[in-house]
Amino acid sequence: MTMTMEDIKRFAMRCFPNGSSSHAWEHTQRVCNLCMHIGQAERADMDVLEIAAYLHDIGRPYQDEAEGAICHAKKGAEMAGALLEKCPISPEQKANVIHCIRSHRFRGDCQPQTLEAMVLFDADKLDAIGAIGIGRAFQFAGELRAKLHNPLVNPEETEPYSEEDTAYREFKLKLSKIKDRMLTDEGRRMARERHAFMELFFERFLKEHEGVK
Amino acid sequence: MTMTMEDIKRFAMRCFPNGSSSHAWEHTQRVCNLCMHIGQAERADMDVLEIAAYLHDIGRPYQDEAEGAICHAKKGAEMAGALLEKCPISPEQKANVIHCIRSHRFRGDCQPQTLEAMVLFDADKLDAIGAIGIGRAFQFAGELRAKLHNPLVNPEETEPYSEEDTAYREFKLKLSKIKDRMLTDEGRRMARERHAFMELFFERFLKEHEGVK
Repeated sequence: MTMTMEDIKRFAMRCFPNGSSSHAWEHTQRVCNLCMHIGQAERADMDVLEIAAYLHDIGRPYQDEAEGAICHAKKGAEMAGALLEKCPISPEQKANVIHCIRSHRFRGDCQPQTLEAMVLFDADKLDAIGAIGIGRAFQFAGELRAKLHNPLVNPEETEPYSEEDTAYREFKLKLSKIKDRMLTDEGRRMARERHAFMELFFERFLKEHEGVK
Repeated sequence: MTMTMEDIKRFAMRCFPNGSSSHAWEHTQRVCNLCMHIGQAERADMDVLEIAAYLHDIGRPYQDEAEGAICHAKKGAEMAGALLEKCPISPEQKANVIHCIRSHRFRGDCQPQTLEAMVLFDADKLDAIGAIGIGRAFQFAGELRAKLHNPLVNPEETEPYSEEDTAYREFKLKLSKIKDRMLTDEGRRMARERHAFMELFFERFLKEHEGVK
């Protein structure tokens, strides 16, 4: 029996059963949407891209459970290998899907070599910035029971995963650097726009914090 | 011994000892900043306003503990009465501070009658909207371990204090209505601007969620 795209989607969804994993599934769906948009602009192989997008984070629960000792991109690529045997795509496409998953990580040891891998890499990073990135950063701060803002503290000197780990810290230390890592033209264009929106947001946020806007 | 503004600030800070109360103290500081700005524009009595801003939520821990059976505005006004005896302000100013605290609540049974009470009312509401309001809404959703967004669900039909209680729900059902409740000219002007920014943010957020921006 061959697997359909619907089967692949269902398989991926089941990899993120509940709790904070529901964020991982929501992220996967947004990355899929981004891949569809960027993939079309870049004329990528959309079958490869859609399968890779659904499967790109299926190794994450293993990484979380092993507290980082397992690399989710490597684990996900292994898991996908077995699954893809039943998929009606060519051996080259299968190898490409596996490469996409293996190379999507921001700090990975494997760089994207194909167009599809570059699109997935960009889509995954774009989901951390812009209005979505702002929402995710504050939401994560809420999960940590962190402060809304630390006006008197330099973000560089605050502790991650603490009540000092604010959304503004996340923006200054991490999110503001993402735009320079894009690999495709459309990804770069979108990242610039999302970055500019974050600048606008936090500039306003700081003024509102002072009560002057 | 008379009380200084620093003593009042210290008293208020100690009313919010730890945990989620730290949000209440951060909110109090932002409301103070807003009162200083709006109060100057509206030519309010700045002594009355600063004292009232620091003390406006000191009854909140009692309301939280009593699960809503105690009104924090009423309780805070009672607590302030005793404290104000040692303050070097006139009896009229003391009565005004108490009225400010008593009437600041959004759904209160007592309406602001003095300029200072109107400024405090507006400042308190402004802190729920704009970029700060967006940050607070996502942060609260994080504390509830809610979803980032429910694209397929009508916000009107979702449950508060659940994993369906998203920032977008908060915006559609509550925050978008605040601008029409302002009582001062400067408060109204700021609310319009903060509201427009929330509209801009969520319009972008929804498009990014679809992967098209």
